[in-house]
Amino acid sequence: MKVSILGATGYTGAELLRLLAGHPQAEVMHITSESQTGVPIAKVYPHLGGYYTQTLGSMQDLPAIAADSDVIFIGLPHGHAMAAGQTILNHGAKIIDLGADYRFKNTAVYEKWYKLEHVHKDAAAVYGLTELYREQIKGATIVANPGCYTTASILALTPLVKNELIDNSTIIVDAKSGVSGAGRGLSLTSHFSETTENFQAYGVAGHRHTPEIEQALSEAASSEVMINFTPHLVPMGRGILATCYARLKPGVSPEQVDAAFYSMYAQEYFIRLAGRGGYPATKNTRGSNFCDIGWHIDVRTGRVIVLSAIDNLVKGAAGQAVQNLNVMFGLDEKTGLTQAPLYP
Amino acid sequence: MKVSILGATGYTGAELLRLLAGHPQAEVMHITSESQTGVPIAKVYPHLGGYYTQTLGSMQDLPAIAADSDVIFIGLPHGHAMAAGQTILNHGAKIIDLGADYRFKNTAVYEKWYKLEHVHKDAAAVYGLTELYREQIKGATIVANPGCYTTASILALTPLVKNELIDNSTIIVDAKSGVSGAGRGLSLTSHFSETTENFQAYGVAGHRHTPEIEQALSEAASSEVMINFTPHLVPMGRGILATCYARLKPGVSPEQVDAAFYSMYAQEYFIRLAGRGGYPATKNTRGSNFCDIGWHIDVRTGRVIVLSAIDNLVKGAAGQAVQNLNVMFGLDEKTGLTQAPLYP
Amino acid sequence: MKVSILGATGYTGAELLRLLAGHPQAEVMHITSESQTGVPIAKVYPHLGGYYTQTLGSMQDLPAIAADSDVIFIGLPHGHAMAAGQTILNHGAKIIDLGADYRFKNTAVYEKWYKLEHVHKDAAAVYGLTELYREQIKGATIVANPGCYTTASILALTPLVKNELIDNSTIIVDAKSGVSGAGRGLSLTSHFSETTENFQAYGVAGHRHTPEIEQALSEAASSEVMINFTPHLVPMGRGILATCYARLKPGVSPEQVDAAFYSMYAQEYFIRLAGRGGYPATKNTRGSNFCDIGWHIDVRTGRVIVLSAIDNLVKGAAGQAVQNLNVMFGLDEKTGLTQAPLYP
Amino acid sequence: MKVSILGATGYTGAELLRLLAGHPQAEVMHITSESQTGVPIAKVYPHLGGYYTQTLGSMQDLPAIAADSDVIFIGLPHGHAMAAGQTILNHGAKIIDLGADYRFKNTAVYEKWYKLEHVHKDAAAVYGLTELYREQIKGATIVANPGCYTTASILALTPLVKNELIDNSTIIVDAKSGVSGAGRGLSLTSHFSETTENFQAYGVAGHRHTPEIEQALSEAASSEVMINFTPHLVPMGRGILATCYARLKPGVSPEQVDAAFYSMYAQEYFIRLAGRGGYPATKNTRGSNFCDIGWHIDVRTGRVIVLSAIDNLVKGAAGQAVQNLNVMFGLDEKTGLTQAPLYP
Repeated sequence: MKVSILGATGYTGAELLRLLAGHPQAEVMHITSESQTGVPIAKVYPHLGGYYTQTLGSMQDLPAIAADSDVIFIGLPHGHAMAAGQTILNHGAKIIDLGADYRFKNTAVYEKWYKLEHVHKDAAAVYGLTELYREQIKGATIVANPGCYTTASILALTPLVKNELIDNSTIIVDAKSGVSGAGRGLSLTSHFSETTENFQAYGVAGHRHTPEIEQALSEAASSEVMINFTPHLVPMGRGILATCYARLKPGVSPEQVDAAFYSMYAQEYFIRLAGRGGYPATKNTRGSNFCDIGWHIDVRTGRVIVLSAIDNLVKGAAGQAVQNLNVMFGLDEKTGLTQAPLYP
Repeated sequence: MKVSILGATGYTGAELLRLLAGHPQAEVMHITSESQTGVPIAKVYPHLGGYYTQTLGSMQDLPAIAADSDVIFIGLPHGHAMAAGQTILNHGAKIIDLGADYRFKNTAVYEKWYKLEHVHKDAAAVYGLTELYREQIKGATIVANPGCYTTASILALTPLVKNELIDNSTIIVDAKSGVSGAGRGLSLTSHFSETTENFQAYGVAGHRHTPEIEQALSEAASSEVMINFTPHLVPMGRGILATCYARLKPGVSPEQVDAAFYSMYAQEYFIRLAGRGGYPATKNTRGSNFCDIGWHIDVRTGRVIVLSAIDNLVKGAAGQAVQNLNVMFGLDEKTGLTQAPLYP
Repeated sequence: MKVSILGATGYTGAELLRLLAGHPQAEVMHITSESQTGVPIAKVYPHLGGYYTQTLGSMQDLPAIAADSDVIFIGLPHGHAMAAGQTILNHGAKIIDLGADYRFKNTAVYEKWYKLEHVHKDAAAVYGLTELYREQIKGATIVANPGCYTTASILALTPLVKNELIDNSTIIVDAKSGVSGAGRGLSLTSHFSETTENFQAYGVAGHRHTPEIEQALSEAASSEVMINFTPHLVPMGRGILATCYARLKPGVSPEQVDAAFYSMYAQEYFIRLAGRGGYPATKNTRGSNFCDIGWHIDVRTGRVIVLSAIDNLVKGAAGQAVQNLNVMFGLDEKTGLTQAPLYP
Repeated sequence: MKVSILGATGYTGAELLRLLAGHPQAEVMHITSESQTGVPIAKVYPHLGGYYTQTLGSMQDLPAIAADSDVIFIGLPHGHAMAAGQTILNHGAKIIDLGADYRFKNTAVYEKWYKLEHVHKDAAAVYGLTELYREQIKGATIVANPGCYTTASILALTPLVKNELIDNSTIIVDAKSGVSGAGRGLSLTSHFSETTENFQAYGVAGHRHTPEIEQALSEAASSEVMINFTPHLVPMGRGILATCYARLKPGVSPEQVDAAFYSMYAQEYFIRLAGRGGYPATKNTRGSNFCDIGWHIDVRTGRVIVLSAIDNLVKGAAGQAVQNLNVMFGLDEKTGLTQAPLYP
């Protein structure tokens, strides 16, 4: 498979390159960066020295790049993918977009939360949360890779919603992310001295991953679900933990909750169930495509608490993108993704 | 004032010594440690070099220590304070206990959550959350200094509960703490390589600060309140952020929420209101006795989200203990506690 | 004393404000920032909320600011202080410059290393390493506050150089600094995800603190000293450790080395000697104006290794500036600087 | 190849398991732990969940374990390997020891620095710094895997020593390590709250890696070399940077220095040369078996400064052990070790 990456100098692009270096069937053809065109990628990211000799190209050559690729990963800020999408398709390549442009079935939701007109409304995109949409992904030409928070949250809550075990109006997702989720762009929020030994929330009641989680849960529920989602910044590089709360429906037993998780995920390689009473830790997933899930039931209050941990750059971005690549091209889903997490 | 500290080699004890070094009216008489008796405190904690020449004594001399002190801070694991309490009182000293022994009005609650028989049931202790119980503290002989999580949580929620603005059955406190909250005792959980670049929850649905928060909120509500409380471990030394959720009662306006906070706290020196839409950060309180509070209203879901940040070792322990000391002895409450937070 | 700060929004400026908030005899009159003129300082730095109500002014008002101040702290990038110096003096204020402009007796050295013409060559500036130049500082109108690395290095090596115990041609300073030393300006080097869990050197054989260390050691030696100085970036906010190596002259005994340190520093409040075999740790000085020094002798190789730890923003910048302020105005040198370090 | 690990629950053992999980020709037969015998390894290290179903055995079964293995990795504290060595050899397995027992040709040096009698003096062990001793490793039955600091230091200095470009009496190695180097055993030094935001030296003039570095450099020099080695603790999990200083011999040109590095290492896959003026960063090697090396020449002082970065648990321990395994068994040296570093 010939693959190319638009926007290869962000953390998502670099992580794709790290994973693709170990993928036996993917060959990286073109990588682009508008700000560092002409620079060798190993100079931008010395950790990739010895793996890639390529020099960064420009999106100005998009038609040629697309013609020379079976699939194109897009690691650009939202707005750019939908502008480039039709050109890519016209030249015969498939698309895996790691941004938000193709994530919403209803583009009006996109336009409302991203405050941008959607310019590729008729795109036949599939939402790329692999475990839940695998069948559609197989035949897709455009895969919208989910956001990092959303991957952790949706995987945590879907078994409960789908099996109608909780009151969907009581869902709260309190999520915590490492700083790499904010990308490589400079900002005071990502400035080391501000962030080390610090913890705070941001985007309360307004974060753009909210409607994405709601879309997936609504589909699982076959009715509209509205949640509270609160992201926080953790002084570490990688990792997301989502702590999800909901009220159990009257009479739901702990065993029913267990069964919901095991029946949905027991066969999934990339989901490791820590079980009832389990405590997933972000570090156990670091560098890997795993999502570790544990759950707790508070009999005093009647609530279930689900804990879900991923590496935001892998299962939350580049890893799931490679997983989708494998599904789209009929490979074993694990290809290139079997390396064990890095601990400690 | 002559003060002594039982259990001076834990982080709480060390923090008391740091603060008392700058307190113009307190003189440290005796400090104890059963494991390091005879060792100079400046050898155990070199940062205190130049401030203290004292050597650690033993609790075996408790009667003499009490007789030689106006007040005794107790920084021991739970169980020890209630065993020593009567002896201290008998020899004429007051008590500020930084552990859990005296925190519960109903000692049965203590016995249930701490699985230990209470041996000083008739103690006339006052709960030392200064802003809420100031009047009782003035005349107290035993002050039960609150836990770190509880201080942040109770201060965040009391204005809403007291003013009957929220549905008390919907309260969820998702709290995050730096590792110093786990103390100086060695454990794998506090082992650097395990904890750095890691984030996880612990004690879900069973943490002992739960009944303490419930006791204070129930008093504010004049009815029994039951909550979900979930603590998490943040890879940093100091700081707690509590993210508190509750459903607003129908018809409650944002302005009513604002008024609840301002009317209760506007005159409080140690509470800094970041206001509606504000984002307190733990680092802004580091080393200080402040509790910074901000709140958000999600009109989509009808919930209020309150964010509350403290330094767990100061307002969450030693600082509030000194604040209580000042109240008990009729000093300006701020005495020895006015140094600005350490940032960055 | 009426004091003002030019460039109050950098970390050095913020740290001056933190310390001056606890200084009983200094009143902050004016604070400036060209990029955030008109903004309240407590909005730029919320940790200062409750301490300062001032709004940031502009250097365009320098004559009025100087006329209204007894002393002006300058926390601007190099080049700006020497441009403003004469104006300040003309309006009757003294200067404490925290940048490099006034640090070199021979302005040609400044021009060579900073690649900038010096525009205030006849300034009668005193080098503000308080413990070594205290007498001159008393009568100074311009004090050039030393760099952070240089403070740690010069204090470590001067006793050995002054007492002629080492071969000055063998001096190597291997220094390590927290990231706050790089300031609040955004850069990839200070970007959290790049810096956390990372360690590297920079500025090998070319860092601008080299000639500053050499100037002070040459004065102590009464002959020209040339050293190797290598700075490194530590994934932490504050703190510098300098590891200094030199070959002992033949026949020098360990006791002579000890005597050199004790005779020079035993009476210095802000220098804490950890002694021969001692291991200063940056954290023991955090938030304080202390410099902790320990030394080791390797009998196998005949070398002495001196370890010196400071908080780069305090003894390495704002704290020493306040110490100099106290000396210049005849106050107790410790005024406003006695708060204990923040540990853990 | 059938491999077993004695002492599998330390960080070195866990890292071996991580790497061997991706090694196509090695099968893990037995893993032991005396303190956690009978516990599944995936319970001790949840990050390995999905890779290993094995339960920890005991060294009491050493003869059977050895008989069932082609090679045994030993990840035990020093003293244990030499006690077990002969038994292992007798039962037909080879040994790769990650401790110090077999590292010294002259066991008297071992006995002096480790203060322990050597009980396997006639062992024919080969020092396992692969790039330097590859030919001997091919035929070895016992490989003594080097220490982490020593790997970084020896690789940095050997080209200069071997080519006689420096004055060997002037060598100083100032090294910095992440906390994982101290292992999983609990200690105050590795306690999170003590170590985060802290930097300090330890083991000055007495660290046990000193004689190991000296042994290798003396062999390269064909004369006895004595150095200063100073280790420091960096608040991060993984990574070592060695900053090495030496005086160049008169007349040595920068090009000669360059040639020494390129001629020795240009063909080495696991050594990446950052070149003259280059700045290796530990993070660029994280999780990989690379050693990145850069060097600088200070014409003012006539010194060369070499910077060398590794992941202490990989090239400094488990990775190099697997590299040696590959060499011993005639496999491609890179087998199982090609995964790219984890960045950021």
